[in-house]
Amino acid sequence: MTQNIYDNQDFFDGYAQLGRSVYGLEGAPEWPALLKMLPEMEGRRVIDLGCGYGWFCRSAREQGASKVLGLDVSQKMLAKAEELTTDNAIIYRQEDMEQLALPKAEFDLAYSSLALHYIKHLAALFEQIYGSLSAGGYFVFSVEHPIYTSPRQPGWLIDSEGKKSWPVNNYQLEGDRVTNWLADGVIKQHRTIGTYLNLLIQQGFTIKHVEEWGPSEKQVADNPELEEEKERPMLLLVSVQK
Amino acid sequence: MTQNIYDNQDFFDGYAQLGRSVYGLEGAPEWPALLKMLPEMEGRRVIDLGCGYGWFCRSAREQGASKVLGLDVSQKMLAKAEELTTDNAIIYRQEDMEQLALPKAEFDLAYSSLALHYIKHLAALFEQIYGSLSAGGYFVFSVEHPIYTSPRQPGWLIDSEGKKSWPVNNYQLEGDRVTNWLADGVIKQHRTIGTYLNLLIQQGFTIKHVEEWGPSEKQVADNPELEEEKERPMLLLVSVQK
Repeated sequence: MTQNIYDNQDFFDGYAQLGRSVYGLEGAPEWPALLKMLPEMEGRRVIDLGCGYGWFCRSAREQGASKVLGLDVSQKMLAKAEELTTDNAIIYRQEDMEQLALPKAEFDLAYSSLALHYIKHLAALFEQIYGSLSAGGYFVFSVEHPIYTSPRQPGWLIDSEGKKSWPVNNYQLEGDRVTNWLADGVIKQHRTIGTYLNLLIQQGFTIKHVEEWGPSEKQVADNPELEEEKERPMLLLVSVQK
Repeated sequence: MTQNIYDNQDFFDGYAQLGRSVYGLEGAPEWPALLKMLPEMEGRRVIDLGCGYGWFCRSAREQGASKVLGLDVSQKMLAKAEELTTDNAIIYRQEDMEQLALPKAEFDLAYSSLALHYIKHLAALFEQIYGSLSAGGYFVFSVEHPIYTSPRQPGWLIDSEGKKSWPVNNYQLEGDRVTNWLADGVIKQHRTIGTYLNLLIQQGFTIKHVEEWGPSEKQVADNPELEEEKERPMLLLVSVQK
């Protein structure tokens, strides 16, 4: 089973403080870029893999999705999602994405935000997602960027002039990365961009858009903390079609 | 016009010492990976953009290509290519890839090795390449990886335990990078992987394979200098189809 770090109380409490938890999609700086990569929502059947508090599920419905299924491994996340949702067309369900079996051609859009870098058996999950989509269906997701996940010891290096660099090493060594983000011992999977894309292509998807997200000038002006995100991409956004 | 650094005597002399110059394709450690990404060569009409000494042009013919056009901006490179070639089905021509106008549907395979990161007007060149290919034709190329081209001051950082990291910064700032590789003031263009792929997709290409090249264990055993290439990718290899 996937490490269910989200049900760890420290992690859950820390997560609850993040902008993207408190403010939803508007609190996630990459959301405008993701939104541009998403198809029109009207009438679409949507699945959200790693739905967390359900912000995307509710947004999809507001944009006209006909029904939404939100999956998450964390019971605590799902309880919070239920609490925030009053819409019978949204269903939440606890699922382990390492062992997911989805119905065939049941959805028109699969979405996943910052969840797939926890998955060990990604090819099997991509196969399930592909099968669950209708012909022409979209799969749009974000993951932590391989530049961000690669290093043995993630963290900025500051030179004598105060300029920041991100230390890339171990890039070709795919697999476990243990970090202490929000809680100790969070296990993520490092993969190259090539691996992500080639797994999708081998599964039959067509690559539509690849974005190594960085903030706009306006975002940096509004939130100077985002300045460092211009130095190295933290997030990889991908849109593919069946 | 493209900066024609290859006709700079220092650069040309330095280039002549590289393994890939002396030993041809076998001297380029990424060649086995590129070869896997190339289609069957039999009967194909091939164009090589930035052909250098013409190693790939001659290899394509040996593998059965029906004719090969090798383009390069450097008169010195082309003179060397002519010197090494005795095959009337290979034609070399001096061209500035910033202002290239190619005939329509004339080729079945376009190839380019480590040349496109010198090009400023890449969308225009991709348009020419797309137009020059037959339906189903392939375009396979290598460029310096964005991780490699991004930093203000490229060069390994060594920590107190002797471990190497590559400093990524300025990643989102696309455009000129001035380095002193083989000669002073070599101007390259830094672009994100996303930009490379999205330009290809917008042009109508289908992404077939993306590889952030790293050496195999055997290559490292045979040539320990390649060890550091496991830490960060220096080369990006891409295969697309019309």
